[in-house]
Amino acid sequence: MKYCSNCGSEVEYKIPATDNRERACCPACNTVHYVNPKIVVGTIPVWQDKILLCKRAIEPRHGYWTLPAGFMELHETTHAGALRETWEEAQARVELGPLFTCLDVLRAEQVHLFYRATLLEPTFGAGPESLEVGLFGEAEIPWDELAFKTVSTTLTRFFEDRQAGFYGLHTGDVFEPTHWTPSHFKG
Amino acid sequence: MKYCSNCGSEVEYKIPATDNRERACCPACNTVHYVNPKIVVGTIPVWQDKILLCKRAIEPRHGYWTLPAGFMELHETTHAGALRETWEEAQARVELGPLFTCLDVLRAEQVHLFYRATLLEPTFGAGPESLEVGLFGEAEIPWDELAFKTVSTTLTRFFEDRQAGFYGLHTGDVFEPTHWTPSHFKG
Repeated sequence: MKYCSNCGSEVEYKIPATDNRERACCPACNTVHYVNPKIVVGTIPVWQDKILLCKRAIEPRHGYWTLPAGFMELHETTHAGALRETWEEAQARVELGPLFTCLDVLRAEQVHLFYRATLLEPTFGAGPESLEVGLFGEAEIPWDELAFKTVSTTLTRFFEDRQAGFYGLHTGDVFEPTHWTPSHFKG
Repeated sequence: MKYCSNCGSEVEYKIPATDNRERACCPACNTVHYVNPKIVVGTIPVWQDKILLCKRAIEPRHGYWTLPAGFMELHETTHAGALRETWEEAQARVELGPLFTCLDVLRAEQVHLFYRATLLEPTFGAGPESLEVGLFGEAEIPWDELAFKTVSTTLTRFFEDRQAGFYGLHTGDVFEPTHWTPSHFKG
């Protein structure tokens, strides 16, 4: 950020009087510009024993596979955002289940939230941001062609929990989730 | 936003070619300025059967009581942010437990994450953003003087779960959490 988005003056980087870290501050209109991490919301859409994945038609990671997910927008809840992204990227309608992963991605300044989800019917298709969409059994997951570490972590934890018979909540850094809160419900 | 933070030109509000909603777009340098919800991270700090609350020394809600919480910053995880806010507002050192609430606050364009936490020792104090900090038993909570709906919702769910003997994860809109994932562990 070089200019104030409120008045167009050049900003100065300094620690505001009532703060403890450097911000972009406008010397003309006194606006302090805060920049914070963004939220990515997505789903793990399940049909029977298979998972719905999308092949990305956009950068970053064009041509790699992902769970449907994207930036949470203003004026929507995390639930609504997860449903919207699942529709936009995979043209799929799902019923949301519990939050499954809440993963910090420090490098990208993002937090990724994935909800478990069940396809309402086995119909789906490639939205404008996908090249291809398909259902994959555990043995068919293209592990070497997954787009993001949060996707591989979420899928790994999902299959582990499914095997154990208890789905949990996994939080922490993408490289090593530090907390697992198991669900009380089987299946 | 009226001016491009990259080049200082006046922005235009329009739907970019590859998008489906209006953004602030710069006609000079072609930057698209995305604005997304912010994350607030906090804790429910417990010492024996009491909860640590802070009386706010800043607006909004100056003089009202809150759980320690604040905006997640760049270059930190949600865990680190929750620990930092607990230190900054309540001068308290805690061990984090599982994520307890993930609540949408549409009006404020925020998502609030509260982690369960245990005080490492019964020492605390008012940081620069607090007038006063204290431990409250369930019967002593100043319900009519709580600062935010996410705080009252989080405390209500906490005492319900404590009573039930199972702590869960509560997600959804602040006015009505839609999912409860109980923990498998008692206490």
